[in-house]
Amino acid sequence: MTKVAILGATGYTALELLKILARHPQTDVVALTTRQTGNPRIAEIHPSLTGLFDLPCENLSHEEVGQRADVVFCALPHTASMEAIPQLLDAGCRIVDLSADYRLNDPGAYEQWYGHVHTDPTRLSTTVYGLPELYQDQIPQAKLVANPGCYTSTSILGLAPLLSAGLIKPDGIIIDAKSGVSGAGRSPKLGTLYAECNESVTAYGIGTHRHTPEIEQVLSDVAGATVSVAFNPHLMPMDRGILCTMYPRLKSETSVEDLFTVCRDFYANQPFVRVVEHIPATKHVAHTNFCDISVRMNRNQLVVFSATDNLIKGASGVAIQNYNLMLGLDQQTGLL
Amino acid sequence: MTKVAILGATGYTALELLKILARHPQTDVVALTTRQTGNPRIAEIHPSLTGLFDLPCENLSHEEVGQRADVVFCALPHTASMEAIPQLLDAGCRIVDLSADYRLNDPGAYEQWYGHVHTDPTRLSTTVYGLPELYQDQIPQAKLVANPGCYTSTSILGLAPLLSAGLIKPDGIIIDAKSGVSGAGRSPKLGTLYAECNESVTAYGIGTHRHTPEIEQVLSDVAGATVSVAFNPHLMPMDRGILCTMYPRLKSETSVEDLFTVCRDFYANQPFVRVVEHIPATKHVAHTNFCDISVRMNRNQLVVFSATDNLIKGASGVAIQNYNLMLGLDQQTGLL
Amino acid sequence: MTKVAILGATGYTALELLKILARHPQTDVVALTTRQTGNPRIAEIHPSLTGLFDLPCENLSHEEVGQRADVVFCALPHTASMEAIPQLLDAGCRIVDLSADYRLNDPGAYEQWYGHVHTDPTRLSTTVYGLPELYQDQIPQAKLVANPGCYTSTSILGLAPLLSAGLIKPDGIIIDAKSGVSGAGRSPKLGTLYAECNESVTAYGIGTHRHTPEIEQVLSDVAGATVSVAFNPHLMPMDRGILCTMYPRLKSETSVEDLFTVCRDFYANQPFVRVVEHIPATKHVAHTNFCDISVRMNRNQLVVFSATDNLIKGASGVAIQNYNLMLGLDQQTGLL
Amino acid sequence: MTKVAILGATGYTALELLKILARHPQTDVVALTTRQTGNPRIAEIHPSLTGLFDLPCENLSHEEVGQRADVVFCALPHTASMEAIPQLLDAGCRIVDLSADYRLNDPGAYEQWYGHVHTDPTRLSTTVYGLPELYQDQIPQAKLVANPGCYTSTSILGLAPLLSAGLIKPDGIIIDAKSGVSGAGRSPKLGTLYAECNESVTAYGIGTHRHTPEIEQVLSDVAGATVSVAFNPHLMPMDRGILCTMYPRLKSETSVEDLFTVCRDFYANQPFVRVVEHIPATKHVAHTNFCDISVRMNRNQLVVFSATDNLIKGASGVAIQNYNLMLGLDQQTGLL
Repeated sequence: MTKVAILGATGYTALELLKILARHPQTDVVALTTRQTGNPRIAEIHPSLTGLFDLPCENLSHEEVGQRADVVFCALPHTASMEAIPQLLDAGCRIVDLSADYRLNDPGAYEQWYGHVHTDPTRLSTTVYGLPELYQDQIPQAKLVANPGCYTSTSILGLAPLLSAGLIKPDGIIIDAKSGVSGAGRSPKLGTLYAECNESVTAYGIGTHRHTPEIEQVLSDVAGATVSVAFNPHLMPMDRGILCTMYPRLKSETSVEDLFTVCRDFYANQPFVRVVEHIPATKHVAHTNFCDISVRMNRNQLVVFSATDNLIKGASGVAIQNYNLMLGLDQQTGLL
Repeated sequence: MTKVAILGATGYTALELLKILARHPQTDVVALTTRQTGNPRIAEIHPSLTGLFDLPCENLSHEEVGQRADVVFCALPHTASMEAIPQLLDAGCRIVDLSADYRLNDPGAYEQWYGHVHTDPTRLSTTVYGLPELYQDQIPQAKLVANPGCYTSTSILGLAPLLSAGLIKPDGIIIDAKSGVSGAGRSPKLGTLYAECNESVTAYGIGTHRHTPEIEQVLSDVAGATVSVAFNPHLMPMDRGILCTMYPRLKSETSVEDLFTVCRDFYANQPFVRVVEHIPATKHVAHTNFCDISVRMNRNQLVVFSATDNLIKGASGVAIQNYNLMLGLDQQTGLL
Repeated sequence: MTKVAILGATGYTALELLKILARHPQTDVVALTTRQTGNPRIAEIHPSLTGLFDLPCENLSHEEVGQRADVVFCALPHTASMEAIPQLLDAGCRIVDLSADYRLNDPGAYEQWYGHVHTDPTRLSTTVYGLPELYQDQIPQAKLVANPGCYTSTSILGLAPLLSAGLIKPDGIIIDAKSGVSGAGRSPKLGTLYAECNESVTAYGIGTHRHTPEIEQVLSDVAGATVSVAFNPHLMPMDRGILCTMYPRLKSETSVEDLFTVCRDFYANQPFVRVVEHIPATKHVAHTNFCDISVRMNRNQLVVFSATDNLIKGASGVAIQNYNLMLGLDQQTGLL
Repeated sequence: MTKVAILGATGYTALELLKILARHPQTDVVALTTRQTGNPRIAEIHPSLTGLFDLPCENLSHEEVGQRADVVFCALPHTASMEAIPQLLDAGCRIVDLSADYRLNDPGAYEQWYGHVHTDPTRLSTTVYGLPELYQDQIPQAKLVANPGCYTSTSILGLAPLLSAGLIKPDGIIIDAKSGVSGAGRSPKLGTLYAECNESVTAYGIGTHRHTPEIEQVLSDVAGATVSVAFNPHLMPMDRGILCTMYPRLKSETSVEDLFTVCRDFYANQPFVRVVEHIPATKHVAHTNFCDISVRMNRNQLVVFSATDNLIKGASGVAIQNYNLMLGLDQQTGLL
């Protein structure tokens, strides 16, 4: 049994991690942390976990975590994560970091988009990016895996086959992304109140959303060329789910059949990407680790669809996928 | 034109007041207050008011409000309201108070349920309770009208005809109340986040909800006897609307037809209560000032239904109804 | 008082028409039609109209409608509309047609997109397109006004200023449109069941949606050049509202300030279009006749936002706006 | 591996059965039936099953089903079920019937509530009622298990401990039940359209809902006395979940602590019933086979809460629980 700790246990990604780990056969959850005082039981924080876990959420030092756990899921906010991780690595833990702190390779890009100087910059270039469909070879031996952003993985999985095959132009790819509200986290804010979000659709973060450089970094790696995107996130009145509708420009005329073939071949051995003929709907992937992908021609305009559950394939599910690979398990363990 | 001020302009009830006043022919909104700094324009606070009102939200003293306004809608939190109102009355304003501070007649009951000593206790017994269907005679000349709670008016309107006619027992009336989330206000709280409330139904405040003594006070007045209720509020995944499903005990066997007749007669001259044959749905009254009422026998158990829009008939609509009566206008002005 | 009939009274657009007409000062609703038998009262069909209208829905001939009404709102399905309208015009009625039958000028385009031969083709070129912000001069004297589609008017209002000013390229404009479910009508279908749509976002009708030629026809007229769009509608889990996120290409670099200025100037005298600095949200326009518009630069990509209530500004509200203009009334009558 | 068939594969309960069976280690799904023609693949009917099952939905005779399958989950409508089941039993299948046809012991009660003569009346009294928390001893050897209704099991699980202990009066128990829309099935109907149900709460079937006699039959068995209920179902704007708020009358004053103790003792060995101190919320049990139960005193009125996922613990989850027991497996197999 692998001993696992979760840092930042009060948020939605921790909740989803625990739901998955409750049916993971190889895992013993040994520590949950929070900055809240009073050591609340996890079922007080997340009543849906009643009867599944009976652990306190503790304000533990990194040393204490390191002593208890073999693998740490770090669900801390950015900046808190890069403070904790060097110490946890020193303590011998292997880590899946769900924050944004180790996703970008370039400390300058981090500073530009996150507004903080990175305090652990040398580790950035050696951290493995935890999108198994692209970096499956590097994850098994990694000490530290940077789990992708939710919009990021959804966008990347849709575009990677076509960029890899050189079928679409790498610049100016328009991404119209639609996300459920849980993506905004569990801290109370006016903008995520029920009576503000319900019965409403709007956009936000146009030109400033922090998943932009992450999408571009990974897709540039896939394409072997500089990829640029216009990323346009929208907030949907639903709990969970992301649909990315993407408008790349074909380099030359290509049949829809060929586009499907390229996608199917690219994901031939990937258990969690489904290339589907129908247009994906977030409901079809909700509460699963699947990413559904499809393509359409709208007259001359290529349209690529990609759908995930932002909390599962977009966060906690892929974290378990990474964890399975790190432990040498079948990556589907606990995820079906 | 009547000069109107709204205290506490950033909440949902103020928003709804302004939407109604935008089509009220007799009113000039002259002041909006907030404790926020920077004098934000009202359309920055409530973008839906863009083009309808171009006023700042100011941190005004009660004196300044008194100098500008003839009538004040007080949408402050409880305790803030009882601090402001004596000064506003002294300044010559007439007031519709949407807070709970002047609803209960008894300062002791206020202290018991709200946990604060009432600082203006002598005024409690002379304040008019602003439910026009019951107190239409007293409202026109009132200086201060205490606008009812949303659950309160919905419950009362359903039960009043049967209590007034002596058909049901006054004690132990079970009220199973279901409300949309806007009833919980616009301050960010974990419990009213979208991702907490959506796809969920639960109850809260069992035995402790503050609308309980208000319902009992008014219904006791209607019944001429001490009414007691078991009030059980539930939170629904919707923006607005209250459905009260109420289970009183008949004193003796009575036909459904007779129950309908009693209700229809009671509200014969009331433009905003509709006694309907179908079971009310909150959607049928949403964005209106109507209260829909119906009755059913479920074998031996009487069931009374009552539905309102908690922000309109349950708050801002009835406030305008009171305002119209205070000004000698048709009570429907601006409300159809 | 103008005598008004509504054909096809059981749908959502008829319901919204009636809600608006209930507070319209110049109108007497004299006939409602349905193919349902039994002459159900309108409040049986739409319980929210209880107490507002007490009319039956009748299976009337066009002659009977013509004898009763001065103005007819035709909310029939397409093909049913082009059968009724010639007879109603012969009977002397003026008509606002909410169907698609008279929106396209070209009978060939109608046949191509709707799959039916148009049976009244000669009238197509003389019908006035009922988007007052563009065709305000032609509506007052029109006998027949073709009310725009909901996606259509929302898209057009966002793009018209920039096309009119020649700032954007007319071809290949990407429209990512998001609509609430009421846009799909009130006939029971699997795809619009609650448990199918809720907690889901998806796209549909890519390349085949019938609002495409309508958008292109009107925008080509505005631009004085052939406009082509890639129109991509999405279904949102909400009752009402459309947000169009549109990605046109600028002809040359233009500042956001200039884009705003062009939009503001274009709509300077239009009471129902609000050019707003924030990103529009469907909630801000819900239950109103407003269309909110804004622009952003996402790096090099222009993004135009446009939001309406699909049932009001997208259907019944603009129908009343047209009706007001046809009667020589202020176009805001009944709509604020 | 057990060979399993599902009759009526196009509905929501079949979908949920298949989602659970996809991770059930002992099962091979060998047949899916539908009356639709063309043998659609199951993933065409339920796209969320893409990649999980690649079976056609066939219009099979009962004989063909019997030849292929060891165990049959019958998700047919009532009356269709009692036609199929005798033949399937003759063919040697064991059956979990999710319809209502074999839930009531008394053919007369069936005829009264369902409006049909029961065509297999003699089997009614010997069919095992598939609520494992009550009838765990009878299920393992059963040939035919009648899976409970969703409201039924939720209501029963909340009330059974108190009735069994003789703490509450058996007559006139008020049940105010709140259900998500999926409970109404997947056949398109006006009343379950998104735009009808969303933003609305209402009641239906007052005094006539068919789960009434089922609740009374089972609770009478538990109580050893005739139990009568006033069952009042409400429709909630959410996909899934049932909350029953129940108002029984205590026989004599009892402390809340004692009530909790009785409930905890009653379910001491039941893995799927959680007696919780907080008030249950449907979200806490969504997508799980748990039933959460709690009690409160609202002044003198006892309030019992019970929450389930209507599609899981209320239908397909308990069906798998029964299936596990019938096969001699741990009843939690596939359900955590």
